[in-house]
Amino acid sequence: MEYGFKKMIILGIDPGIATVGWGVVSLEKGCFRYIDCGTVNTSAGTRVERRLFLVHSAIKDIITRYTPDEISIEELFFNSNQKTAINVAQSRGVILLAAEESRVPVFEYTPLQVKLAMVGYGRAEKKQVMEMTRMFLRLDKMPKPDDAADALALAICHGHSRSSKMRDLNTIKYSKKTGGN
Amino acid sequence: MEYGFKKMIILGIDPGIATVGWGVVSLEKGCFRYIDCGTVNTSAGTRVERRLFLVHSAIKDIITRYTPDEISIEELFFNSNQKTAINVAQSRGVILLAAEESRVPVFEYTPLQVKLAMVGYGRAEKKQVMEMTRMFLRLDKMPKPDDAADALALAICHGHSRSSKMRDLNTIKYSKKTGGN
Repeated sequence: MEYGFKKMIILGIDPGIATVGWGVVSLEKGCFRYIDCGTVNTSAGTRVERRLFLVHSAIKDIITRYTPDEISIEELFFNSNQKTAINVAQSRGVILLAAEESRVPVFEYTPLQVKLAMVGYGRAEKKQVMEMTRMFLRLDKMPKPDDAADALALAICHGHSRSSKMRDLNTIKYSKKTGGN
Repeated sequence: MEYGFKKMIILGIDPGIATVGWGVVSLEKGCFRYIDCGTVNTSAGTRVERRLFLVHSAIKDIITRYTPDEISIEELFFNSNQKTAINVAQSRGVILLAAEESRVPVFEYTPLQVKLAMVGYGRAEKKQVMEMTRMFLRLDKMPKPDDAADALALAICHGHSRSSKMRDLNTIKYSKKTGGN
């Protein structure tokens, strides 16, 4: 199968202010490989500007270290807690800035899209998404904490989306060829 | 009157994603002086990462140009439009980051606090706030657009808050002296 790229490194990011999950995978010949994952943590007692600075620096460091080709990040929805939601959105702002400064394209996915891509079922449970992530990466067990695992799922979700788009493009190309042009 | 500082330059910022208002004033011996104001504009057709990058760069430039001692920024509240609110919060995140990177302390004010500081009345109309801003800065008319004028009001609001805190401190000091110690 031809994907239009030889090997792609994808950085998945689960945005937050106290905990930002991140996970790096490679996608080569339709196979995912686990590279690394972790979390960036900032403490609630720290000034918000400082927390944003720490998140921004950490994401820049991760981008420099793993040189991802593309970034996959979760789309935000507001929950009931306004203050947390504002802080998460502010943090997501500095994450997007870090990507743009490093000229890495960003792709956004809703939790529904992640479930569909990983389990094929929009009402799948978190446990099922985790289990599929583990299988795709051929790991004995899922890395902890959950935020890092969520970030890996986002990276795989993007890899799937990327591969299927490429597949579609190739199919179109192929159809044209067989179409006699 | 002694304020504990000789001259202070304050940068007021009215956060947004399409338009960020900014205004610079100085405060010396209890008097405000208008320095400059304007808006940073990003277009809705531009990728959000790029818009955040443009806002961040522009705010860094303004900080470099006017070397403010302190920054006054409006606190966010969510309105009904979720998407706009997320974008504004993301933009506010990169503004706070710019302040932190430049090591300029940030102070936040609600619209209510601005009204109280400027007009002394929490249900004051926007027009009254603008008129007081114009008077404090001894301008013939208020600068346009409104976002820049709002930013100037935020800067003055912070100047007031700063001055009254200093006044309180001096009063306490004075009381102690007269107390016979």
